[in-house]
Amino acid sequence: MQSNQQAYDRGTSIFSPDGRLYQVEYAREAVARGSPVVGVETTDGVVFVADSRTPSPLLANDSVEKLHDLDGRLAAASAGHVADARRLVDYARRYAQEERLRYGEAPGVEPVATAVADHVQETTQSGGTRPFGTALLLGGVDPEPRLYELDPSGLTRRWRATAIGGDSEAIRATLEASYETGLEATEGLTVALRALDDGREAEWDGASVDVAVVDSSGIDRFDSQRCAQALVDAELT
Amino acid sequence: MQSNQQAYDRGTSIFSPDGRLYQVEYAREAVARGSPVVGVETTDGVVFVADSRTPSPLLANDSVEKLHDLDGRLAAASAGHVADARRLVDYARRYAQEERLRYGEAPGVEPVATAVADHVQETTQSGGTRPFGTALLLGGVDPEPRLYELDPSGLTRRWRATAIGGDSEAIRATLEASYETGLEATEGLTVALRALDDGREAEWDGASVDVAVVDSSGIDRFDSQRCAQALVDAELT
Amino acid sequence: MQSNQQAYDRGTSIFSPDGRLYQVEYAREAVARGSPVVGVETTDGVVFVADSRTPSPLLANDSVEKLHDLDGRLAAASAGHVADARRLVDYARRYAQEERLRYGEAPGVEPVATAVADHVQETTQSGGTRPFGTALLLGGVDPEPRLYELDPSGLTRRWRATAIGGDSEAIRATLEASYETGLEATEGLTVALRALDDGREAEWDGASVDVAVVDSSGIDRFDSQRCAQALVDAELT
Amino acid sequence: MQSNQQAYDRGTSIFSPDGRLYQVEYAREAVARGSPVVGVETTDGVVFVADSRTPSPLLANDSVEKLHDLDGRLAAASAGHVADARRLVDYARRYAQEERLRYGEAPGVEPVATAVADHVQETTQSGGTRPFGTALLLGGVDPEPRLYELDPSGLTRRWRATAIGGDSEAIRATLEASYETGLEATEGLTVALRALDDGREAEWDGASVDVAVVDSSGIDRFDSQRCAQALVDAELT
Amino acid sequence: MQSNQQAYDRGTSIFSPDGRLYQVEYAREAVARGSPVVGVETTDGVVFVADSRTPSPLLANDSVEKLHDLDGRLAAASAGHVADARRLVDYARRYAQEERLRYGEAPGVEPVATAVADHVQETTQSGGTRPFGTALLLGGVDPEPRLYELDPSGLTRRWRATAIGGDSEAIRATLEASYETGLEATEGLTVALRALDDGREAEWDGASVDVAVVDSSGIDRFDSQRCAQALVDAELT
Amino acid sequence: MQSNQQAYDRGTSIFSPDGRLYQVEYAREAVARGSPVVGVETTDGVVFVADSRTPSPLLANDSVEKLHDLDGRLAAASAGHVADARRLVDYARRYAQEERLRYGEAPGVEPVATAVADHVQETTQSGGTRPFGTALLLGGVDPEPRLYELDPSGLTRRWRATAIGGDSEAIRATLEASYETGLEATEGLTVALRALDDGREAEWDGASVDVAVVDSSGIDRFDSQRCAQALVDAELT
Amino acid sequence: MQSNQQAYDRGTSIFSPDGRLYQVEYAREAVARGSPVVGVETTDGVVFVADSRTPSPLLANDSVEKLHDLDGRLAAASAGHVADARRLVDYARRYAQEERLRYGEAPGVEPVATAVADHVQETTQSGGTRPFGTALLLGGVDPEPRLYELDPSGLTRRWRATAIGGDSEAIRATLEASYETGLEATEGLTVALRALDDGREAEWDGASVDVAVVDSSGIDRFDSQRCAQALVDAELT
Repeated sequence: MQSNQQAYDRGTSIFSPDGRLYQVEYAREAVARGSPVVGVETTDGVVFVADSRTPSPLLANDSVEKLHDLDGRLAAASAGHVADARRLVDYARRYAQEERLRYGEAPGVEPVATAVADHVQETTQSGGTRPFGTALLLGGVDPEPRLYELDPSGLTRRWRATAIGGDSEAIRATLEASYETGLEATEGLTVALRALDDGREAEWDGASVDVAVVDSSGIDRFDSQRCAQALVDAELT
Repeated sequence: MQSNQQAYDRGTSIFSPDGRLYQVEYAREAVARGSPVVGVETTDGVVFVADSRTPSPLLANDSVEKLHDLDGRLAAASAGHVADARRLVDYARRYAQEERLRYGEAPGVEPVATAVADHVQETTQSGGTRPFGTALLLGGVDPEPRLYELDPSGLTRRWRATAIGGDSEAIRATLEASYETGLEATEGLTVALRALDDGREAEWDGASVDVAVVDSSGIDRFDSQRCAQALVDAELT
Repeated sequence: MQSNQQAYDRGTSIFSPDGRLYQVEYAREAVARGSPVVGVETTDGVVFVADSRTPSPLLANDSVEKLHDLDGRLAAASAGHVADARRLVDYARRYAQEERLRYGEAPGVEPVATAVADHVQETTQSGGTRPFGTALLLGGVDPEPRLYELDPSGLTRRWRATAIGGDSEAIRATLEASYETGLEATEGLTVALRALDDGREAEWDGASVDVAVVDSSGIDRFDSQRCAQALVDAELT
Repeated sequence: MQSNQQAYDRGTSIFSPDGRLYQVEYAREAVARGSPVVGVETTDGVVFVADSRTPSPLLANDSVEKLHDLDGRLAAASAGHVADARRLVDYARRYAQEERLRYGEAPGVEPVATAVADHVQETTQSGGTRPFGTALLLGGVDPEPRLYELDPSGLTRRWRATAIGGDSEAIRATLEASYETGLEATEGLTVALRALDDGREAEWDGASVDVAVVDSSGIDRFDSQRCAQALVDAELT
Repeated sequence: MQSNQQAYDRGTSIFSPDGRLYQVEYAREAVARGSPVVGVETTDGVVFVADSRTPSPLLANDSVEKLHDLDGRLAAASAGHVADARRLVDYARRYAQEERLRYGEAPGVEPVATAVADHVQETTQSGGTRPFGTALLLGGVDPEPRLYELDPSGLTRRWRATAIGGDSEAIRATLEASYETGLEATEGLTVALRALDDGREAEWDGASVDVAVVDSSGIDRFDSQRCAQALVDAELT
Repeated sequence: MQSNQQAYDRGTSIFSPDGRLYQVEYAREAVARGSPVVGVETTDGVVFVADSRTPSPLLANDSVEKLHDLDGRLAAASAGHVADARRLVDYARRYAQEERLRYGEAPGVEPVATAVADHVQETTQSGGTRPFGTALLLGGVDPEPRLYELDPSGLTRRWRATAIGGDSEAIRATLEASYETGLEATEGLTVALRALDDGREAEWDGASVDVAVVDSSGIDRFDSQRCAQALVDAELT
Repeated sequence: MQSNQQAYDRGTSIFSPDGRLYQVEYAREAVARGSPVVGVETTDGVVFVADSRTPSPLLANDSVEKLHDLDGRLAAASAGHVADARRLVDYARRYAQEERLRYGEAPGVEPVATAVADHVQETTQSGGTRPFGTALLLGGVDPEPRLYELDPSGLTRRWRATAIGGDSEAIRATLEASYETGLEATEGLTVALRALDDGREAEWDGASVDVAVVDSSGIDRFDSQRCAQALVDAELT
């Protein structure tokens, strides 16, 4: 690293001379340290697949959730700093609940993503706090399936299919090659699992993947048996 | 960079010995890192053209909007840090809405530009926050077409035609050569597209340009087909 | 230590270039300086065993508690900075009490763990404060036995069996080898004591271990006689 | 620059060993970077002349105003940081409006200058903010014509004739040689234009000068035709 | 001292890489600079003995109190920074008074010790303040005699007998050798005085020791005659 | 300057090792950069004489006032940073007005001096602000003539005759030689003018001295004609 | 000075590694820069003697008071930073007045000393402010004569006789040799004056000493004639 970089990377309240925010870039590194999550828009709904590595057999399987139910119709997937992700997911839940109370109906994916992103943006402009070291994927059907990514800069983008966390660039490259519009949910699940597999060295087993599909009837969270079957269907085990 | 510069560029609360604000200048670099937007005043209204590069085919086309509808009659175009731009556009929307509620009619372009600019100026004088890394173009017809630029120092200027974001100096040089008073909107669109094209190396296709025309009847946002046709009309494809 | 690390470890409000939070890692060192505590989920309840070293014979035996009664049905075990642990235990007690007042029933283990973890996370994101130098194990039966760990980053994880404090890695390795699902409380106690013993050089006596079992009828805190007997039953004395 | 100076110039909350406030002096440099404005007291009223350079032919003529109407009877001219000037002019307008509401009549030039100056002084004493990088001339007839200067230290001074902004020292030297008491407004305008011309290399044209005369009937802002005629009358074109 | 230590000892809001809080350790040095105080639990009550050195014959004997009456039934002894000790003793008095008003009876020794300790802990976690440079011994009969120590980290521990202040390690070593359970108050006084004497070079006289015994009837503060007699009884003069 | 001094002169919240407050001493330098003011107690009242240098013939004579009417019966003279002086004079005026409203009569010289001095002292103890770079002389008849000096440390002293600002030490030396008790106001004026003249190189003229005499009937401000005559009477022109 | 000391002396919120507070020690140096004050307890009351040096014959004799009347029955003497002393004396006066209003009688010497000392202690623990650079002696008869010292650390001590300010160590050494219990006020005055004389090089005259005696009937402030006589009685002139 150049000493020049060190002069501008100690906080979020300064730009570097070339207009970069180093602390935001470092927060992206915190995201890259997390295990990956894949999201895919399909004709039926949004498919989320998480690589749920358990570092110890003593750790309960659902111990560190990476897939989150926001309000029964909206789901989020997170990568990076776990406690930061929990705070953002809580923020999204409270926002969705307040909007539902105010307007009598659930907010769409994009308004929720933007509300959380504005909260994240504030940590990138004022001093005295670090950015959130986490990225989110948000998905729902309102009424068409929508998948949004939220990154530590407060940027939101809508994707057909993408990944956050470790190896996300490699996974996205696989997705670019394999994704086609018009996929059904089961096809999208296979595309997601295979992309996740490409960026992975170890073998799969039922315990090490989490799957959720958000469609117009709600969030369908797979149990370990269905997760294992999905891996079989994707010809990965 | 000289060590002297480094002594004065760590925050907005100090001047350099020659009276410069380095953090504001670095924020301008953040703007220059964004893709360009062109605005042109015509006899009918204000034309906005954005270079909407999509870094991945998986990214939804309207994912990162650069053209924004403020209140149905005022439009904004942004360049630079995306999350910062969203905050300023939100600020402008709220201001326009509050003024409309208070006075029964929509505010003009200049009052909106000034209100946002005052908000931006505050981040350039007090410590503890960085400037906004974004520039805006604002346009509307009240009753004559007006195009304003807002830069990270909080400066607002009215232009006949200008550009913000990457290559904006080259684009503006082309505009100075090609702009004439009395252009109609369709002519202004061609002038804007050709100026954008001059600062560009890749070929155009329908997906990679966004167009909006603000006239006395509101904001006319082009779909991809009309965008492609505009490029054809400008003899760029 | 590299000088590079020193550039990023003076506070919680900055990430290192590789996305780490050094102050949180140093807080984990503060935990590792404490004496260890073991927790084991069994079919009957959660077993906690603490290594209660007394550095002086003049020190009263129950002087520095490592096992804490939160509300009669939830227990916590702590390792690390003693005064910090007391603050977190107080925080958990107040939260449990308030929830009970609000909803008429005691909260479960996971909500309490999450509430404390959110409080801990705040100290890892804002400047002006250090993280808590303490880790907690929380256990209860609601209605199944549950054991949660809370670390200085604000991460909570559910374990079948784990340890915090000094030698916790070695103890956990022993637990991974000896833990089986379906253990009864007395078996779990033996597993916990033997794991604690493996990471220990001195001989045991009745005064130097604390035991508590949380089951559906409440918290059963062992007196020194029963502690001594447990060590005998585990064939450690 | 000496390293000694650098030790005392990072904020407004410290004096240098010789009792200077470097940040205030740097703010004066920000003023000197702006284009000049001249003010002249005459028997009829106060004449303001601004050098309104437009760096681009695409920039609208009245884009960056340097002459400001405060309340119909008081005018201000600014030099230096444009956004800062807008804030101070707004401050003066609000003050004048509040005084008029409170006392039923408009405040005089001196009370307005002092109110703005007190606001400016605060930025030169407390930390956490930089001084305003702008100077103002304020003029009105209450009942005699009065011209006040406000500088970034918060100092106000009454002048017969003076200039702020770039080349202001040279312009003032010309004014000292040419100013006489008892000038009428048209004579004062010629004196002001010629002084401005002396510190200038380029030729004049109608678009590049702004003129306003404040007399007992209000503020008379010249259009470009009258500005051009004034330059002709002053034998400058 | 190593330069590494200097990197982490400028405030309470950071841990050192090995999880230490240097400012708390330095506060312990402030305690060690004070004259020692000894506390001993006996069957009748808690005995406090302070080494009341008077640096000048002009100084009034009771000038700097080291033994404090908290509420008639609880006593405290302090070592270290005198003004800090006075603040903590005041804090304890107010807490005891408020609890008595709220519940109609005096709080026990342990709740008072914990309340003060929580106040102390806050100074060890947040920036902007230093820790208290003082340690306290608190004693009372509620209904059994109890002796608590409070150190600058906010740690409280119950002791049978201990010392704080200068030479406290040596004094505690003597206490470990001489203390036996079941001592009566007069025996405890002798044990305390002899331990204090072991860490001392000068000869004793009546003016240079303070004694207080807290039993179920209140606080018995010895006058100088009884102090002198206690030294005689302990065969020290 | 020694590097040691630089270690302690960056703010008002620290003492140097020899118990000095460098920022206060630097503020005294700011006073010494101002033009001098002389005050003399006489049997009739207090005489103030200011050296009112006008750096430009275009500057209005009364532009930068150095003699201030506080409430019709109390006067102040200032030296040093002009905007700071205006703030302190405003503070004194408000205090005098509030006291008059509260008690029905004007406060004496000493209470006003003390109130302003307490305000000044606060800037010398807390961080985040610099001291006031100004000194004041305050004078009035309540019922005997009184002259007080207020310096940037917040010290107030009563003088028979003294000076503040540039050359004040030389002027005071002259006053010590020429001042006698029992002077009438006209004699005191001559003493003051001659002392001011001794520390001065240029010739006098009517425009360059300001005179005010505060006696039991109020403040008598001299016009330029009387000022010129006073210089003649003092045999200075 | 060692570089090690410089690492810990820039504020009150950190301890040095050996548990010292350097800023408090530097504040004691500020006290030592002041002229000395002596206090002596006698059978009748407390005697205060101040060395009232006047650096200029133009300075009014009572200009800088070192002896202060707190409420007619309590007196204070100060040494060190004059404006700081005025703030502490004001604080003591307000406290005494409030206590008198609340309880119908004046507070004793010790409660007043403690209240001021607590205020002083706060400046030695929190950042953002420096300690008070002043020491006080407080005296009164309630009902026996009492003399307390308050130093910049917030320590209060009761003395039979002591001194603060310059040469106070030498003066105290003289007092230790000459002070006897049972002195009457006139004898105490002589002891005080001779001790002050021992640490002094110049000759005495009536103008250069201030004397006050606080007894059960109030505060007896000596005029210059009685001060001169006291010096004669003490055989010093």
